[in-house]
Amino acid sequence: MDVDQRQSQPVAIAGDVRRRPFQEISRASSFGGQQLTLIHDSAATGTPMRVSVYQPPAAERGAVPVVYFLSGLTCTEENFTVKAGAQRMASELGLMIVAPDTSPRGDRVPNSDDDALGQGAGFYVDSTEAPWSDHFQMFSYVSDELPRLIECTFPVIRGKCGILGHSMGGHGALTIAMRHPERYGSVSAFSPIVAPSAVPWGRKAFAAYLGPDEAAWREYDATLLLRDRGFPTQILIDQGTDDPFLQTQLQTERFIDALKARGQSAKVRMQAGYDHSYFFVATFIDDHLRHHAHILHQGSGG
Amino acid sequence: MDVDQRQSQPVAIAGDVRRRPFQEISRASSFGGQQLTLIHDSAATGTPMRVSVYQPPAAERGAVPVVYFLSGLTCTEENFTVKAGAQRMASELGLMIVAPDTSPRGDRVPNSDDDALGQGAGFYVDSTEAPWSDHFQMFSYVSDELPRLIECTFPVIRGKCGILGHSMGGHGALTIAMRHPERYGSVSAFSPIVAPSAVPWGRKAFAAYLGPDEAAWREYDATLLLRDRGFPTQILIDQGTDDPFLQTQLQTERFIDALKARGQSAKVRMQAGYDHSYFFVATFIDDHLRHHAHILHQGSGG
Repeated sequence: MDVDQRQSQPVAIAGDVRRRPFQEISRASSFGGQQLTLIHDSAATGTPMRVSVYQPPAAERGAVPVVYFLSGLTCTEENFTVKAGAQRMASELGLMIVAPDTSPRGDRVPNSDDDALGQGAGFYVDSTEAPWSDHFQMFSYVSDELPRLIECTFPVIRGKCGILGHSMGGHGALTIAMRHPERYGSVSAFSPIVAPSAVPWGRKAFAAYLGPDEAAWREYDATLLLRDRGFPTQILIDQGTDDPFLQTQLQTERFIDALKARGQSAKVRMQAGYDHSYFFVATFIDDHLRHHAHILHQGSGG
Repeated sequence: MDVDQRQSQPVAIAGDVRRRPFQEISRASSFGGQQLTLIHDSAATGTPMRVSVYQPPAAERGAVPVVYFLSGLTCTEENFTVKAGAQRMASELGLMIVAPDTSPRGDRVPNSDDDALGQGAGFYVDSTEAPWSDHFQMFSYVSDELPRLIECTFPVIRGKCGILGHSMGGHGALTIAMRHPERYGSVSAFSPIVAPSAVPWGRKAFAAYLGPDEAAWREYDATLLLRDRGFPTQILIDQGTDDPFLQTQLQTERFIDALKARGQSAKVRMQAGYDHSYFFVATFIDDHLRHHAHILHQGSGG
């Protein structure tokens, strides 16, 4: 019997979610820690938002670093949680992992038939355009509201955290980290959309969410942000060479060129034979968690 | 973008599936090996059957041991494949993993509204009763037809393999191994249904598939088989203490009593705080794969 968490209904708040922003939907022991699925009313999106939280055993003894994982198009908070196998290494390293849903959802939330626009495709931007702008405020949600709620609920080290993501979530992780290096100590990505202003998925979404003036897109384009700002610590990227989206939607070489132009500390690994799936993410997730733990533990003196 | 493999259509046979029983539905690199989803026409069930195969890197250099994983109620070949995180350790140990679907499926195949009967609930028996007996021949499929097809297609060490499973699949693994110790060198289970003749899930399914005469059920009841036959090597079982099915459907203590009565070599671990989910399976899958590799490598002189 395998239980689909998406079909579960919210239940009463558990006693040990210490303060009240989150309702607990499910909880399971995992590698000595706890895998939680939570829901809360988001002020940023104006909707209920689901979040997956892995609490490692070390969090029972004191504050731990936290890393945020952002998923890609069509995903929810569940894909990474059940498919990436991240809990084993997070348990070992003493990292909390927080994985939010990829967009606001619900009957009141606009949608589209296109996988790259609407529910499941928030692109981690703050929309300025009707009908999206009422709810599609994922940049503020992920970079501001959610970390504040996590910090007042769970035993995490405040102020510095890590962020990583896959595909559209890799775009989210890179742009959020580069715009807020005071909040994020470490960043990495799997198969990221690095140049959304230049590829079909990104251009369609940005035109809808941000309007036709491409000047407004610059703050959400990792390659352009990297040229302007860089990032204080090494950036880690894994990209499969057999990824069917590599040439059309990802165009990793644009980011590599910007890394070189800026002299940014980075490790970009083109992984031969790997595709765009969570089998790829699972294969290299341990390296990413070690990357974050190494930088974040240095930062906290731990 | 996360791709649901169940929605994919079969494509042409890949060149490196060397002989022809299987069609390849999908393939992804995973921990240096290949994660395949295959489909083939089963003579035992009279239907197409899906199978997941993880081929470790060691299989490129020579024959490797193979372990079969049987899933539980409501599952397909995909649940274990994407949720258990087994590929990492299978890659390290050089084990092939084969995970079949849990029943015949299709419009022609009888079904029921009950999760514990019909499609997704084959219970690894050879049905003798209408309308089930035309297709529900999962014991023969898993213990005979599938291993023969795997052995003529993939570089596996012939004759001895391991078998493990979860819940209904734990029942399948234990009963198949004890009835065919000449084929299976090692066996283990997560949260197994150990006494189907005595619990609601099992009694309902066995009455439907095997008829009212309980004498016919004995060959499919792990606790009764253990009392009669035992198994030549140590049996490993992990069971969560917070499993909601423990008291009603699993009743592990019946099997423990039989282990003691027989003096069977076994390790039964009651894992405090763990439930019935794949988070539980993922936490302890490494130990199970090591258990199988240890016994199977001894058996092959490797």
